[in-house]
Amino acid sequence: MKLVSIGTVHSPWLEPKGTPIQSYAAWQEEGGWPGGPEDDMASPFRDRRGGRGTLEIVPEWEDALADVESLSHLWVFFWLDRSTPAKAKVLPYRDTVERGLFSTRAPSRPNPIGISCVHIVSVRGRFVHVTGLDILDGTPIIELKPYVPEYDSFPNAQRGWLESDSVRQGAMHADNRFLKDPT
Amino acid sequence: MKLVSIGTVHSPWLEPKGTPIQSYAAWQEEGGWPGGPEDDMASPFRDRRGGRGTLEIVPEWEDALADVESLSHLWVFFWLDRSTPAKAKVLPYRDTVERGLFSTRAPSRPNPIGISCVHIVSVRGRFVHVTGLDILDGTPIIELKPYVPEYDSFPNAQRGWLESDSVRQGAMHADNRFLKDPT
Repeated sequence: MKLVSIGTVHSPWLEPKGTPIQSYAAWQEEGGWPGGPEDDMASPFRDRRGGRGTLEIVPEWEDALADVESLSHLWVFFWLDRSTPAKAKVLPYRDTVERGLFSTRAPSRPNPIGISCVHIVSVRGRFVHVTGLDILDGTPIIELKPYVPEYDSFPNAQRGWLESDSVRQGAMHADNRFLKDPT
Repeated sequence: MKLVSIGTVHSPWLEPKGTPIQSYAAWQEEGGWPGGPEDDMASPFRDRRGGRGTLEIVPEWEDALADVESLSHLWVFFWLDRSTPAKAKVLPYRDTVERGLFSTRAPSRPNPIGISCVHIVSVRGRFVHVTGLDILDGTPIIELKPYVPEYDSFPNAQRGWLESDSVRQGAMHADNRFLKDPT
């Protein structure tokens, strides 16, 4: 099972420390994205406001972006290329108790695959402008899928251990605990 | 970027033809899962009702399943090992018009990674009993993540081309169009 890169994330986030821990947090970052003329550019753009950035897709797969602009949300699958090796138990960003890795979204995993559901701003050629990025700049993209509410939205799903008293509900930013080779 | 298998899906579905196209369809299959004593077994179990099956995790990662049973829903990431090579434009199961691959959930992709959000029934050792499987029996598992509503649930996301008149809204089952080497 080998993966190929289908693109690169252009993001305002250069290290885990201070990066929003999920898309929903990134959307709110610095008041959200106000919109701008950059929405029409066929080149990457980055802004901390709204966690704004660009998914640059390789020319080979540009045609696969047809119809993407008709959607509002997109699943981005990416390779967590700067994470430490995985352990079975981890201390999550938002908790003070160790949890089983598969019950957390910690970025150190047996197969370091991350997902984020981002907002689509525009698609210009092979550049997808988005908000809600919680992904580091330069991260390889391995897959894009449409977000479809009836397939993906389960508002009543139970949060399990995330309801524990030990969890800091307002914690919205990462730190460098899972970063390989911090400088 | 190389992947390792972290487990295997035990599912009642042996080929794409007749398999529910998404978890939400599988949950409803044959009236849903009625529950049963199998929920407590530390061994795989399969039933077409409710799209019931078992995720068998390799012994090396059993400890990473801690706290998973506290959740109601789980993202399963799997390797679409029986799909044809990807093309940029595809005819989706539910449409009569070709669409850009990245705007569809077709199983033939540059990196053949699938995701399903399944219901957790129970966790017994390294066996996770679930309902809502739309995955073929024997499929390699590459990742598990908790489903967290505030991270993943966006009921108002726009469905784009899926609102077109050409889309069959009631289509709930796959056929063999994306199957490699059909017999």
